[in-house]
Amino acid sequence: MAAPDLSSAQPARVIADLRELAALTGGPDGARRVCWTAEWQKARAWEQGKLAEIPSCRVEIDEAGNLWATLPGASPDVVVVGSHIDSVPHGGWLDGCLGVTAAIEVLRQYAGTVPPVTLRLVDWADEEGARFGRSLLGSTAAVGRLVADEVRGLKDRDGIALPDALASCGIDLDRMGQATGQLAQVRACLELHIEQGPVLEQMGLPLGAVLGTVGVERHALRFAGSTSHAGSTPMHLRRDAFLSAARLALEAREIAKKHGGVTTTGSAVCEPGIVTAIAGVCTLLVDQRALDAGSLAAMWAEVREAAVRIAAEEGTTVSWEPLFQIEPIPFHPTLIGFAEESIREVAGAVHSLPSGPLHDTPNLARLCPATMMFCSSINGISHSPLEDTPEEHLVLAVEAFSRLAHKTIAWVASS
Amino acid sequence: MAAPDLSSAQPARVIADLRELAALTGGPDGARRVCWTAEWQKARAWEQGKLAEIPSCRVEIDEAGNLWATLPGASPDVVVVGSHIDSVPHGGWLDGCLGVTAAIEVLRQYAGTVPPVTLRLVDWADEEGARFGRSLLGSTAAVGRLVADEVRGLKDRDGIALPDALASCGIDLDRMGQATGQLAQVRACLELHIEQGPVLEQMGLPLGAVLGTVGVERHALRFAGSTSHAGSTPMHLRRDAFLSAARLALEAREIAKKHGGVTTTGSAVCEPGIVTAIAGVCTLLVDQRALDAGSLAAMWAEVREAAVRIAAEEGTTVSWEPLFQIEPIPFHPTLIGFAEESIREVAGAVHSLPSGPLHDTPNLARLCPATMMFCSSINGISHSPLEDTPEEHLVLAVEAFSRLAHKTIAWVASS
Repeated sequence: MAAPDLSSAQPARVIADLRELAALTGGPDGARRVCWTAEWQKARAWEQGKLAEIPSCRVEIDEAGNLWATLPGASPDVVVVGSHIDSVPHGGWLDGCLGVTAAIEVLRQYAGTVPPVTLRLVDWADEEGARFGRSLLGSTAAVGRLVADEVRGLKDRDGIALPDALASCGIDLDRMGQATGQLAQVRACLELHIEQGPVLEQMGLPLGAVLGTVGVERHALRFAGSTSHAGSTPMHLRRDAFLSAARLALEAREIAKKHGGVTTTGSAVCEPGIVTAIAGVCTLLVDQRALDAGSLAAMWAEVREAAVRIAAEEGTTVSWEPLFQIEPIPFHPTLIGFAEESIREVAGAVHSLPSGPLHDTPNLARLCPATMMFCSSINGISHSPLEDTPEEHLVLAVEAFSRLAHKTIAWVASS
Repeated sequence: MAAPDLSSAQPARVIADLRELAALTGGPDGARRVCWTAEWQKARAWEQGKLAEIPSCRVEIDEAGNLWATLPGASPDVVVVGSHIDSVPHGGWLDGCLGVTAAIEVLRQYAGTVPPVTLRLVDWADEEGARFGRSLLGSTAAVGRLVADEVRGLKDRDGIALPDALASCGIDLDRMGQATGQLAQVRACLELHIEQGPVLEQMGLPLGAVLGTVGVERHALRFAGSTSHAGSTPMHLRRDAFLSAARLALEAREIAKKHGGVTTTGSAVCEPGIVTAIAGVCTLLVDQRALDAGSLAAMWAEVREAAVRIAAEEGTTVSWEPLFQIEPIPFHPTLIGFAEESIREVAGAVHSLPSGPLHDTPNLARLCPATMMFCSSINGISHSPLEDTPEEHLVLAVEAFSRLAHKTIAWVASS
């Protein structure tokens, strides 16, 4: 049986689906498909309606709440396409559901055929973690990395416990780990998502191939000097914790540039924090990210060294504590190559970039070849009702993602 | 009638007085002589008892609550010595009352004589402004600069209004301005105070001559850039308000050094102020002080220029609003010379320095020759039960201040 015509993807259908979903579960205040709520279940019901229109497509919900739609193929080997339909409160109309609707379109292209490999759509449950603070919940369970006791005590702002919210959707926290069974035959995993950043827009490109997700080294650096009176302390007798932090923040920027990563110092809290006193303590939050593990380690080492040197020069002391650490997850070079090729075919030019935000597909990349494709975000805005993408970029995204799926299916079938 | 013997000052008597006052109105939790309270009135009664022991000494309370003790002299021209007996809550045992008790000792030296000029001790009311937030209340009234309506609405933390607290001490807010009558004949004003800073201690000196009080330019600088995601925004596309503020703070330090002033950036508040977002707004508090008005103006002009230049380079914008501005008040060169000479005579070496903190005597310096003398503060600490000064420095301070008073009296008498 021949592969479907590469030109058979109908982007207009995907965009119509997105508008329908937005009308149902969004509006001027943004998307409201927060996972484990009635609005999310409404979106899921809508999604199942769309999938029901595809012949031979079998839909199931796994033990972790992830939705799977399967088109059985000539081989039991599985290629997964998908994303997540849940959103943050007041979210955008594309974050997550673009990838789900584009995946539905891939299934539609194979409808009525027996694909060379089994094709499965996934809609991961609770990617956002918007209600209980734990993101990537469904995909983490599916890859066998969820520790139930670590999330059992989570409560939402109304005091409702996560296990109770899960139960209201038919999910048993202690059985979520059984979702690993879904991944036994998976040979590749693909996801289309909006960039949620400004890179592609600034380059004037509609689409990018994603190299992987960056690793994160996130620390609180605490500089301690001496609080004293703004009027009575001459400059040469000061031990100013804020100026120590200011120097470190500027050096950390240069270190990030040198290694091709990013570093953000989003907060510097001074104590006592008043206009008439030199800061005796300043706590600086430092978030470092890089796609290469060696670069990330070097960035953090150099920031530590700079902090110690600056503290010595300023007559202050410095200590740090980790807030969050995650290793980089690089995507599969063959699949990245397919993504670049697909984008070039539909858009002429491509840029390959790491993903700063977390996604579900990197979880899968620990188990099998995986990659993602980004389309541009206007002003880099996401998690906001203002989130948007030029419609012509959405059209190209659906076309390129469809090509990426076809190339990957052929590759898995032939390997 | 001859001037008293310069060696007649008895520092031990002053130190004994200070310990007595601390036992009465202080203790392990520090001084509690907050103005317009019963503890302050207790201190005032103690003070009046000490003054009653001095023959021919007439005590009165003026319309602003300032206490005056007068030793009539051969001339109606007046030399004023004094400070304030009020304290902050949990205050130190020397702030203010050292200057009052040292002034009592000067009066004791002239007791039984007719000084060449009239000698008056003043204990200014509410120097600290600790209860209602308005410092230098009594001296501001005495120099005719108190606008009653500006303070009429002030309330303490229990909701008691300033006019009611004043009334409980027999003071009528609307008559406080009549205290100006006390200054008609004043030809010079002198005050001994602890430094409340680290300069003298660091130089290994017990005493310093005070050149004046610094002027203050205090502003809030608001840098505005663009909030974006710490992971998805590459370094070259950032418009980071915090890094703009960090650069400005470091430049402001160099500008202060260049002009011999001080600059403090005690707080930098980032918005949204979270670890995963580049700061879109950063509000930096900048406090600049210098003794020379031209230097102060240049410091503020250069900081404004630097802020505009840095903002342009960082892709941010900057605006500012004034929080507090006061002009420098230089002391009288002849009296500064007497202070330096007196200190050299008793301590061998002298350092002349500006005062960062505000005091009452600069208010007087607008009307007549005035100066102050500082003695060292251990670790520069004040407004704390830990406030202290080596006893041998207190001894030298009483001796040097007595000499300063004698020299000034002779100068006024001969001019």
